Amino acid sequence: MLNTLIVGASGYAGVELATYLNRHPHMNITALAVSAQSPDAGKLLSDLHPQLKGILDLPLQPLSQAADFADKVDVVFLATAHEVSHDLAPEFLSAGCVVFDLSGAFRVNDENFYTEYYGFSHQHQAWLDKAVYGLAEWRHKDLKEAQLIAVPGCYPTASQLALKPLVEAGLLNEAQWPVINATSGVSGAGRKASLGTSFCEVSLQPYGIFNHRHQPEIVAHLGMPVIFTPHLGNFPRGILATITCRLNAGVGHEDVAQAFLQAYQDKPLVRLYDKGVPALKSVVGLPFCDIGFAVKGEHLIVVAAEDNLLKGASSQAVQCLNIRFGFPETLSLI
Amino acid sequence: MLNTLIVGASGYAGVELATYLNRHPHMNITALAVSAQSPDAGKLLSDLHPQLKGILDLPLQPLSQAADFADKVDVVFLATAHEVSHDLAPEFLSAGCVVFDLSGAFRVNDENFYTEYYGFSHQHQAWLDKAVYGLAEWRHKDLKEAQLIAVPGCYPTASQLALKPLVEAGLLNEAQWPVINATSGVSGAGRKASLGTSFCEVSLQPYGIFNHRHQPEIVAHLGMPVIFTPHLGNFPRGILATITCRLNAGVGHEDVAQAFLQAYQDKPLVRLYDKGVPALKSVVGLPFCDIGFAVKGEHLIVVAAEDNLLKGASSQAVQCLNIRFGFPETLSLI
Amino acid sequence: MLNTLIVGASGYAGVELATYLNRHPHMNITALAVSAQSPDAGKLLSDLHPQLKGILDLPLQPLSQAADFADKVDVVFLATAHEVSHDLAPEFLSAGCVVFDLSGAFRVNDENFYTEYYGFSHQHQAWLDKAVYGLAEWRHKDLKEAQLIAVPGCYPTASQLALKPLVEAGLLNEAQWPVINATSGVSGAGRKASLGTSFCEVSLQPYGIFNHRHQPEIVAHLGMPVIFTPHLGNFPRGILATITCRLNAGVGHEDVAQAFLQAYQDKPLVRLYDKGVPALKSVVGLPFCDIGFAVKGEHLIVVAAEDNLLKGASSQAVQCLNIRFGFPETLSLI
Amino acid sequence: MLNTLIVGASGYAGVELATYLNRHPHMNITALAVSAQSPDAGKLLSDLHPQLKGILDLPLQPLSQAADFADKVDVVFLATAHEVSHDLAPEFLSAGCVVFDLSGAFRVNDENFYTEYYGFSHQHQAWLDKAVYGLAEWRHKDLKEAQLIAVPGCYPTASQLALKPLVEAGLLNEAQWPVINATSGVSGAGRKASLGTSFCEVSLQPYGIFNHRHQPEIVAHLGMPVIFTPHLGNFPRGILATITCRLNAGVGHEDVAQAFLQAYQDKPLVRLYDKGVPALKSVVGLPFCDIGFAVKGEHLIVVAAEDNLLKGASSQAVQCLNIRFGFPETLSLI
Repeated sequence: MLNTLIVGASGYAGVELATYLNRHPHMNITALAVSAQSPDAGKLLSDLHPQLKGILDLPLQPLSQAADFADKVDVVFLATAHEVSHDLAPEFLSAGCVVFDLSGAFRVNDENFYTEYYGFSHQHQAWLDKAVYGLAEWRHKDLKEAQLIAVPGCYPTASQLALKPLVEAGLLNEAQWPVINATSGVSGAGRKASLGTSFCEVSLQPYGIFNHRHQPEIVAHLGMPVIFTPHLGNFPRGILATITCRLNAGVGHEDVAQAFLQAYQDKPLVRLYDKGVPALKSVVGLPFCDIGFAVKGEHLIVVAAEDNLLKGASSQAVQCLNIRFGFPETLSLI
Repeated sequence: MLNTLIVGASGYAGVELATYLNRHPHMNITALAVSAQSPDAGKLLSDLHPQLKGILDLPLQPLSQAADFADKVDVVFLATAHEVSHDLAPEFLSAGCVVFDLSGAFRVNDENFYTEYYGFSHQHQAWLDKAVYGLAEWRHKDLKEAQLIAVPGCYPTASQLALKPLVEAGLLNEAQWPVINATSGVSGAGRKASLGTSFCEVSLQPYGIFNHRHQPEIVAHLGMPVIFTPHLGNFPRGILATITCRLNAGVGHEDVAQAFLQAYQDKPLVRLYDKGVPALKSVVGLPFCDIGFAVKGEHLIVVAAEDNLLKGASSQAVQCLNIRFGFPETLSLI
Repeated sequence: MLNTLIVGASGYAGVELATYLNRHPHMNITALAVSAQSPDAGKLLSDLHPQLKGILDLPLQPLSQAADFADKVDVVFLATAHEVSHDLAPEFLSAGCVVFDLSGAFRVNDENFYTEYYGFSHQHQAWLDKAVYGLAEWRHKDLKEAQLIAVPGCYPTASQLALKPLVEAGLLNEAQWPVINATSGVSGAGRKASLGTSFCEVSLQPYGIFNHRHQPEIVAHLGMPVIFTPHLGNFPRGILATITCRLNAGVGHEDVAQAFLQAYQDKPLVRLYDKGVPALKSVVGLPFCDIGFAVKGEHLIVVAAEDNLLKGASSQAVQCLNIRFGFPETLSLI
Repeated sequence: MLNTLIVGASGYAGVELATYLNRHPHMNITALAVSAQSPDAGKLLSDLHPQLKGILDLPLQPLSQAADFADKVDVVFLATAHEVSHDLAPEFLSAGCVVFDLSGAFRVNDENFYTEYYGFSHQHQAWLDKAVYGLAEWRHKDLKEAQLIAVPGCYPTASQLALKPLVEAGLLNEAQWPVINATSGVSGAGRKASLGTSFCEVSLQPYGIFNHRHQPEIVAHLGMPVIFTPHLGNFPRGILATITCRLNAGVGHEDVAQAFLQAYQDKPLVRLYDKGVPALKSVVGLPFCDIGFAVKGEHLIVVAAEDNLLKGASSQAVQCLNIRFGFPETLSLI
């Protein structure tokens, strides 16, 4: 049994993490924590999220410094704000913990990225160098050795799972950047009250056009420029990405199908569609990324769907945990 | 042309008011105002509510005191917090304006009511004595003479329109209190961001059981005790009230139908259903209260539906205006 | 391992059943079936419900007669139309199978009930006499011996779990019938396309006033008359019931709390609220019925929430299975 | 006063048409009609759509042939199936009526288009030659003379209003086809019950990839190939189109702004955004198409939003009527 701490357990991703880890046969939840300043500190998780009543009634302990918990746990999950992860992760790492960070603080090995897109100056280049980007289907081998796993963002997970097999196989015409149009449920904005996520204000709308921080994250790990346009949708959970690409001359349906098959045929948490494309409802509440596509002439449209809180956050973190410690990849997930 | 000021124009009811008054042939919107402290002050209404772009692009002027506007306008609409209305209304009234107050500040002629249910001590008993409760279908005559109109709450409007004909006709068994179960859209909670009205947190749930401030408002004007249980529903607008009553011995379907017909047959904004009961969608966006009912033995179920922002607030305010100034009752509303 | 057949596996309740049984450690799904006339016959369950892709890819076999499957299975779940269950259940029972019927065909031991409320003449009085009504928390002992379990309807489950402790403890004033106002998600209407359940037509609305077939089902098993008014809500899943009762003189909050505690303190799938009442979101996707209440003077309001497809159908069926065969009551459910 | 007939008045677009025309000061609704086979024939429009109760209580008359009505009306609106419009329009036209056809039957002057995309053989080439495509902002002059107006499809309206100014100004790089990703509310699928538009089945999903009939309609009138991917969204009304284009070298933000300004500065029903892009909620229930855009390097993203039933159907039909008969363009619309 591994002892684990979840920091930021009261947020939407934190709750999902806690639920998975609570039923994981090799994990013991030593503590749930929130920042000492949080109004949630001291409350039961199930008071804030009554669906967990009787399932997970642990208190949310106030965390002031990593040292309060570091010597009691083997594994730490950080479902915290980027700056908080940036500060906390090195402390837990120094104490020997394995850290799964769900924030953006260690996803791109480029200090400038944080200044430009996250608004803070990164202080831990050494850990940036060591961090493994937890796109589970693609970093299997590195994950087995990692001490710091930077779990990918929600949009980047869907986008890269859809595009990486094509890039790796050299199928895409580089003269034309893939166009990623993606729509996320409101939970992607977190659990903090804001006018923009108020019930009466939400409707379908694009945001962050040409400047969303997930665009450079995708580019950094995909190795190809893309145009990424996120949208807020009027549903609580899920991401659907519709990606339009141009194929190299001579590339056809069969080549695309082969590329996907080769990449994912033995990957249990990516589901390929033989025909048609996924709908959002097929993945909500589930740890899968579903992928389908269509080709016409030189044009390819790939559709990827996932639950933004699961494959786009918490279930991928647990998938990485399973890989890291040699458990079956889908343990506690399906 | 009457010059008018809308205070609190940036809220959901304020926007509807402004839209109605903007197309009203006898009204001139002199100014839209918000409290001087509001972050909305100085912005265009259509920047906050882009659906009004090109229709109503007036700025939201900061209001510090009534005197800033009182001498320029004939009519004032207060779509403000209860305490703000309590303070502002007398100032505008002293300046000779006719005031339509959409808050709860002048609805019940009992100072204790405000202490107990609104948490402030009422300072204007003289105006409480003069205020006319704007349940338009029932206070037609008084409205014609009123200077201060207290527009009823959203739940009380639906509840009283459903029950008052029965009470007046003496059909209800007083030994058993009518049970009002009502569900409101989220806009009823106002436009301020809060966790409870965040998109991901809203689901069907009762609230304010046995202690919602609309219960005593209903009782005060209906003259009969009721059990009132409000619910929050997962939709932006509308109220549906399902009311279960016990009839006096010998009272049947025909008596109930007659009572409703007598009360509303010449009232254009109450629609009676010959058979069946209304659904929420039949009234959203419209200034009607729809009423249907069913009788079995001694039991009667009445269903009333309205748009909480319209017949439950803004359209009823304009209906009262029309009655007060002798315009056709539905002018600018249908 | 028990071999099992699910008939009607392509409907919403059938899918949930199949999902539970698929992960149940003592159950082997021998076959999924639909009626031979169904357009779903021959398809994969996961083609109709892609969320199950990779989890449960069994075909939906056409069932013409029970004999095609009866000798291969120990346990049969019927998630079928009432008339179909009425015909099929006796065939499977005669073959020695244990049958869990999710339809209304065996819930009330009164032939007239079927003529009046279901529109068919019941032919199996002997089985009506033997059927055990599967309100799991209340029929534990009988369930252990049952061969035919009539799983309760969705509304009756929530309504009875909320009221039965009060009736048994003699707390309710019989002069006044409890008023049950309940709202169900659209899945309660089944998976067949109809205008009334079309996306653009659904809004909050009452239906079946004074004549819904779940009213007599409640009365038959509760032993007390009630007024039951169901509503259709604009959400896919869940039921919330708000129940208004009159208490006997002298009965107070503590008596009610005690009655609930005594009934459910050792029942893992009913969750009692110490304070407040449940919201719909707390139970969607979960096998619980959540109950909270408030008392004021002689009036009591009880709120019960459940997932209509789970505790109101499929999870209660599996709960009954677990009790029937001596497995832990929540096995495969939590 | 012009006498008018609406055929197909019971559908979602028909209802909106009827509402507009009912309040139009120069129009008299002579009759509402549906096909003689329709189950709606003989009912009141307000029985099917209770929101119209007291506003528009006309019956839906069965229409077997145009001759039943043609001599009584000046103007005919066809909100009917494509094949029905194809057959009916010439009859009404021969009788001298002005016909506004909301179906796809006369939108593209190419017989093969109908065979390939609509599955019927077009019989009326002469009328195809004379039909004016009612993209109101662009065909103003032709509309003034038209007898047959083919009101554009919902997606083509938003797509063309967004792209046409850019194409006309020669700003787009033709080497790269514009990528139109658009999401429509469920009402776009019409009022017929189907599993795909059932409440519990709807979620965000692409459909008609590479083969939707609106793609060739766009191309035919825009004069440039595009990639068009429609999506079904989980909301009743509205379309939001996010369009990604490549600009010619040297073209910048100001050029795009100028192109839009020149095209629409005097067009009251297209609203341009100085900054930011529209959200769906800004147009639902309104007759506008809202357009905003952003430029980065050679890439341009244009976002257009409209109500699919209004600017995408009924309000554009009335706008065309106003232009055709010399009424103010927005009469009865705002």
